[in-house]
Amino acid sequence: MNWQLEVLGTQVNASSFFPRVAIIGLGLIGSSIARGTIALGLAGEVVATDGSADVRQRAQELGLAHRITDTNAEAVQDADLVIACVPVGAYGAVAKDIASHLKSGAIVSDVGSVKAAVLKDMAAHLPDTIDFIPAHPVAGTEHSGPDAGFAELFVNRWCILTPSEAASPDGIERLKAFWQALGANVETMTAEHHDLVLAITSHLPHLIAYTIVGTAEELEGVTESEVLKFSAGGFRDFTRIAASDPTMWRDVFLNNKDAVLEMLGEFQEDLSKLTRAIRRGDGDALFEHFSRTRAIRRGILSIGQDAASPDFGRPHQGLPPKGEDDKP
Amino acid sequence: MNWQLEVLGTQVNASSFFPRVAIIGLGLIGSSIARGTIALGLAGEVVATDGSADVRQRAQELGLAHRITDTNAEAVQDADLVIACVPVGAYGAVAKDIASHLKSGAIVSDVGSVKAAVLKDMAAHLPDTIDFIPAHPVAGTEHSGPDAGFAELFVNRWCILTPSEAASPDGIERLKAFWQALGANVETMTAEHHDLVLAITSHLPHLIAYTIVGTAEELEGVTESEVLKFSAGGFRDFTRIAASDPTMWRDVFLNNKDAVLEMLGEFQEDLSKLTRAIRRGDGDALFEHFSRTRAIRRGILSIGQDAASPDFGRPHQGLPPKGEDDKP
Repeated sequence: MNWQLEVLGTQVNASSFFPRVAIIGLGLIGSSIARGTIALGLAGEVVATDGSADVRQRAQELGLAHRITDTNAEAVQDADLVIACVPVGAYGAVAKDIASHLKSGAIVSDVGSVKAAVLKDMAAHLPDTIDFIPAHPVAGTEHSGPDAGFAELFVNRWCILTPSEAASPDGIERLKAFWQALGANVETMTAEHHDLVLAITSHLPHLIAYTIVGTAEELEGVTESEVLKFSAGGFRDFTRIAASDPTMWRDVFLNNKDAVLEMLGEFQEDLSKLTRAIRRGDGDALFEHFSRTRAIRRGILSIGQDAASPDFGRPHQGLPPKGEDDKP
Repeated sequence: MNWQLEVLGTQVNASSFFPRVAIIGLGLIGSSIARGTIALGLAGEVVATDGSADVRQRAQELGLAHRITDTNAEAVQDADLVIACVPVGAYGAVAKDIASHLKSGAIVSDVGSVKAAVLKDMAAHLPDTIDFIPAHPVAGTEHSGPDAGFAELFVNRWCILTPSEAASPDGIERLKAFWQALGANVETMTAEHHDLVLAITSHLPHLIAYTIVGTAEELEGVTESEVLKFSAGGFRDFTRIAASDPTMWRDVFLNNKDAVLEMLGEFQEDLSKLTRAIRRGDGDALFEHFSRTRAIRRGILSIGQDAASPDFGRPHQGLPPKGEDDKP
């Protein structure tokens, strides 16, 4: 089969092009996929929907898709690639909803931050006639909703595929090409390994950030105004991810319980060690630990996974004018 | 006394101007103060020194001060304002070193992240003839050394003064005006209260970040390469502050032990609560907590203490060209 086509005057790659892509859920991730797919001409038609009428209305105004449908069933009609982009706890219901409306041979995927649970929840409903290939683009911001998305979100980020044994090599190849066309690097692993890796690189950091921001809010002896004013000492960094979507993160922790608790155990052991070093005044142990962690930052910068400029490249205001407080 | 003078053709404020400012220690903070002082004409002469001959050499090349001296004693000679900018554990030795060389009536200050210990260490050596007013500008980046500083570092950040009872109201007013001229907002509180507030807004966040980055480095079952690649899921945010200067942070924890351990206790209680909610699958408790922490982020943005743009304003690469992987 030759998928090579002219779209909007631009030649797109055979394997990354789908005549019809359906996107279910138009939050940060779904709306970013929709924007990127249209901007890059990766689909003949993008059809999208969302469980919320307000979001569908907003998506219409923003022109996020060629067609916005009211139901999941309508959206997946004749689609060659279906990507569900909903909170981790909602995938089972979406799969059940679309199962009998899917075109034979369609690729069905998702963007869930947990893979074993989502794979299980969706596989229970999806027919054997489709190609089910779960995916997780490791990208995002602390903002949510259809206005928060942007086409560049996945550029130079990683997208992890966790195909089941039943997935076809051709389907895996085509989904991989699609994500690569959106700018992502693609890696394949088992759902179980994904859940362990993301527990440390994403889920535990969020849990820790949510915790410390909550701690700061409830302290006696330190006012909330003081916490806000002096947050540039480090605290403000944690508030960004602690501002992420509560529904999404509730579902992540409920659905990746074992791996998160395992990582939490490791973290607690290490925190106990450092606490003991502080209590005993063991400066050498502290210095040794604090020197070691610098190398990880250098590693992340060297592979382009963060901004190399100081302070994440946060903008700085200019100097005040000379002798400003002296003016009449 | 009328301090109003013409400096570099610009009229500067009476109270923020010092004929001679001495800076001891030219790391991120010291070199930023030096740059700002010169850029804004806040001193007739800036004299600076550093314990490291390499740093003094580099400071010379960068033109960080009008004069670089080899010793602390020379630097403070005839200075009207002396600011020591060294790791928290080194202030006692600096005070001892300069005590007999200080001009009568000089203001002596510091920039230490811990105040009670520094106040005690320095006061033990300083003569009664000078005005000792400890200070802490709550600003910084993860970079260290004389090249890392910049004049704008303190703009719209807070500087906390913790004057002893012996400090003169006039001296406090002049040091306040100096920091305001550098762009900072100034607040005054006791050293003890400072240490409690900073334990939650700065010291505990650093300890947590240092811990989790160490945990990720040592895991079995997840490779370091995976930690780096998938760090955009949240982990990379923690690596920035875990890349901060190890000597500085060792000294902070050794010198603010009680307040840090107290905040750590509060954090542990809250983490236990969330851990229990995860273990029991209590989605409502998780959702309620995750919703509450969003408000703190909004508060920080509303007072201009962080970038309002998503993801700290990290730059995003543009979209890949259409059909790039199709080119011959």
